[in-house]
Amino acid sequence: MASGMMVMEFLPQWFSPPALRAYLAEFISTFLFMFATAGSGVSARMVTPDATSDAASLVTVAVAQAFALFVAVFIAADASGGHANPAVTFAFAIGGHIAVPTAVLYWVAQLLGATLACLVVHTLSAGQAVPTTRIAADMTGFGASVLEAVTTFMVVYTVHAACDPRVHRAAGRRGASATETATGSLAVGLVTGACALATASLTGASMNPARSFGPAVVGDDFTNQAVYWAGPMVGAALAALVHRHVVYPASSLPVPDPDPEARRGSVEAVVV
Amino acid sequence: MASGMMVMEFLPQWFSPPALRAYLAEFISTFLFMFATAGSGVSARMVTPDATSDAASLVTVAVAQAFALFVAVFIAADASGGHANPAVTFAFAIGGHIAVPTAVLYWVAQLLGATLACLVVHTLSAGQAVPTTRIAADMTGFGASVLEAVTTFMVVYTVHAACDPRVHRAAGRRGASATETATGSLAVGLVTGACALATASLTGASMNPARSFGPAVVGDDFTNQAVYWAGPMVGAALAALVHRHVVYPASSLPVPDPDPEARRGSVEAVVV
Amino acid sequence: MASGMMVMEFLPQWFSPPALRAYLAEFISTFLFMFATAGSGVSARMVTPDATSDAASLVTVAVAQAFALFVAVFIAADASGGHANPAVTFAFAIGGHIAVPTAVLYWVAQLLGATLACLVVHTLSAGQAVPTTRIAADMTGFGASVLEAVTTFMVVYTVHAACDPRVHRAAGRRGASATETATGSLAVGLVTGACALATASLTGASMNPARSFGPAVVGDDFTNQAVYWAGPMVGAALAALVHRHVVYPASSLPVPDPDPEARRGSVEAVVV
Amino acid sequence: MASGMMVMEFLPQWFSPPALRAYLAEFISTFLFMFATAGSGVSARMVTPDATSDAASLVTVAVAQAFALFVAVFIAADASGGHANPAVTFAFAIGGHIAVPTAVLYWVAQLLGATLACLVVHTLSAGQAVPTTRIAADMTGFGASVLEAVTTFMVVYTVHAACDPRVHRAAGRRGASATETATGSLAVGLVTGACALATASLTGASMNPARSFGPAVVGDDFTNQAVYWAGPMVGAALAALVHRHVVYPASSLPVPDPDPEARRGSVEAVVV
Repeated sequence: MASGMMVMEFLPQWFSPPALRAYLAEFISTFLFMFATAGSGVSARMVTPDATSDAASLVTVAVAQAFALFVAVFIAADASGGHANPAVTFAFAIGGHIAVPTAVLYWVAQLLGATLACLVVHTLSAGQAVPTTRIAADMTGFGASVLEAVTTFMVVYTVHAACDPRVHRAAGRRGASATETATGSLAVGLVTGACALATASLTGASMNPARSFGPAVVGDDFTNQAVYWAGPMVGAALAALVHRHVVYPASSLPVPDPDPEARRGSVEAVVV
Repeated sequence: MASGMMVMEFLPQWFSPPALRAYLAEFISTFLFMFATAGSGVSARMVTPDATSDAASLVTVAVAQAFALFVAVFIAADASGGHANPAVTFAFAIGGHIAVPTAVLYWVAQLLGATLACLVVHTLSAGQAVPTTRIAADMTGFGASVLEAVTTFMVVYTVHAACDPRVHRAAGRRGASATETATGSLAVGLVTGACALATASLTGASMNPARSFGPAVVGDDFTNQAVYWAGPMVGAALAALVHRHVVYPASSLPVPDPDPEARRGSVEAVVV
Repeated sequence: MASGMMVMEFLPQWFSPPALRAYLAEFISTFLFMFATAGSGVSARMVTPDATSDAASLVTVAVAQAFALFVAVFIAADASGGHANPAVTFAFAIGGHIAVPTAVLYWVAQLLGATLACLVVHTLSAGQAVPTTRIAADMTGFGASVLEAVTTFMVVYTVHAACDPRVHRAAGRRGASATETATGSLAVGLVTGACALATASLTGASMNPARSFGPAVVGDDFTNQAVYWAGPMVGAALAALVHRHVVYPASSLPVPDPDPEARRGSVEAVVV
Repeated sequence: MASGMMVMEFLPQWFSPPALRAYLAEFISTFLFMFATAGSGVSARMVTPDATSDAASLVTVAVAQAFALFVAVFIAADASGGHANPAVTFAFAIGGHIAVPTAVLYWVAQLLGATLACLVVHTLSAGQAVPTTRIAADMTGFGASVLEAVTTFMVVYTVHAACDPRVHRAAGRRGASATETATGSLAVGLVTGACALATASLTGASMNPARSFGPAVVGDDFTNQAVYWAGPMVGAALAALVHRHVVYPASSLPVPDPDPEARRGSVEAVVV
């Protein structure tokens, strides 16, 4: 009952205008990322004669993912922090940078965005199948989970490095400048591209549960879906812990952090 | 008659030296974008043995578009705002950031630049056909229009995010710095590259009426031209509305905007 | 005789330590650009089974050129201005930003760097032929010259936009910051990549006399060499004129330019 | 014995928390770079039908390397300087920017990271062979060493240019800003990508002893390993010497360097 009252009390906060804008920003950004991923997969397959992938197809999809994620993070940074990935939101929730109810609503927005993107590509392309993330023959689900954890670790560690407030503080400013947001977003996009090339033939290179969820819903094929949730979540959590507590602990901060508002505009900005 | 007088009164303004420089900048930038798009399409086809596209050709054209549009926006930013796309100009006109007569003259410059680029590629390559944007078999014109609207939405939304004056203000400066112009332009170029990969096999990935108009004129083939005007214009208008009124409304501005001059140097800068 | 005395008087200046460092920087940067261009051409051909080019080979060479030129300009910017291209040096000489004797010595450094790069690739690869720039069948030398002029115009116009001192001044600083040098260099590299994709199958995409000269010397094949000098030089000169006198004339400067030293660190910095 | 005492005295310093964090950062970054390199090689081979490389495979691996190294340098910059390459560490040791014992421990971290990355790719991919760096038929080990020296020279010269403290000082700040770290890291990543495309078919494009060591350990094939240590080390040493003593000597410093702490945050930052 106390819990029920708490929900009532915070409800307006979770649905305040800035919060709603953040959810919409996450929806748009995850839509963009998934649309580029699904669309480039379909476009590459349509021009590859023998209907199997080749190295040029790998490049097509990885470059589309890299460029789209860069921009997806960049355009949402000021409104929602630019996650576009449930694993990133999970990592920030673990680190206490985003409230759990907000994180849940971010997830909803991300999954809706990814699913709608796949639906748009599937329907408007006259029924082309949206490629799902698949595990290579001979590989185990456990092996795929570990590879997904490793690649997601790299992506989420980069997200944390890109939005470390100390870095922005060192330059004498309070928050990230537009350029820092852009270059940080670029790093997040390009590390995703690199990892996409690395594991494309092995796990389908998800690193993002929403990227595996959308095609599964539209194609009604949830094979190995657990792999693409467990792996990225574990990798994201480890990345947050290693970044914040091992490599860049608070004790190495050059200056104190007197103003929580200062984080506005950084990739990590949160709404509630 | 009053209208005639108004035209007479404003005529000098529309043809003032800064305005003429802006039109020329749009002409050069759209020429660059179209030249890279048309030329890369021709170059890829010339080395692809069986005269059909493959995934490497998709990458060729999409990377050429991404790199060229980045630079096209960057080199025109200070003179015209760096649109290089009638849909972008349309969005800024809807938002009141550019006067309608100026927008019309921007369009003329953009269409002339794109057409001349196609003419140069066609003529100097000893008659190679410039690839037009085409709709995949089985797809409807309506489906293609929606895909074009979706991808153009992403591009124009990114343009608005990249030139949001609040972002530059937050860093304590009045206008965009050279670096902000560059990173914003990079985002616009790369999101175009991502969307080009996503819809290359479906709609030909126009996102820009000038990019469809130029090859149509030179190849005298206006099939589905309406698709490549309606889709991008609707997507661009929606992007402007969603960005300005929903995700980043004026009420979320951290500081008032006392000086319209402050926008000088931003991607959005306008001349009249 | 007066002229002889002038030469004697200025000789120490042309061979002062900063001048010598500038020549060496140009040598290194042009070597890097040519090495990446020649090497990527050889590497792509070695793995392409039927010994003819394909679209993936176009991407290989264009991406190598784009990335290498970005870095070539970036690493030499503070020492020589980062030209790495005789056409760029020619444009700055026309604009009065570099003295003619200095420009000539830049040319010597650039041609030596490009030739040595081709020699290294040819010799150490056990005799692989370094690809020369070639004109497509059916095309005329005049057509190729115009295409080279058009693409070089784009490159040199971008160089001028990237090093425009007004842009840096607007941000309240005297010279280009390290970031501005980097983003400007990126624009120069990527526009070269875009134009390389556009004209690869038509003219071989030179845009740089040194890039055509090096392979010609090492392969002893000077066919159409004039095309690759005349085209780029005309395009470069036009770009300088259009940028400085038409689109961004001095009268549009927001602030006077009281200190020629202010240009230090910009892409355009000159030594004498 | 005095030496033994010195070791005892400095031991705590080499294993202080910041030093341990630096080793971990080098481990993570080299792991990332090697994982992307090895994984992309495996992924490209799995989709290339006739099991030989093609130009699209070259692009796959080079782009993965370029994007991954950019991010590897970027995410470690504040903790370790972001070397991710024993040759870079060697160059900084020669220049006196990092103590020899620290350099040795950096090497250990880098070699462990690269080896573990290869082990992860090999084991989790159900036994796919990790591609080793190989010398083309007809080429000599000496020729390959020189090519590796040339390409590593370019990479390490770029590292030095990107972290030159004078550049950052000129902008009126003490250390590199987050943006300067990002753009400098981008230059390091992309020059590696360009050189990877240039020598992929000739030497396998190592430029990094750890990149050759990891696959050798996992595949138990140390053929020509000496080439991939000697070449890069010589090239790196030459790059450091030419950059610091010839092209950008201390005498050309615009301002004195009063504060060694100022280098914090730069790519070159050292721990001991």
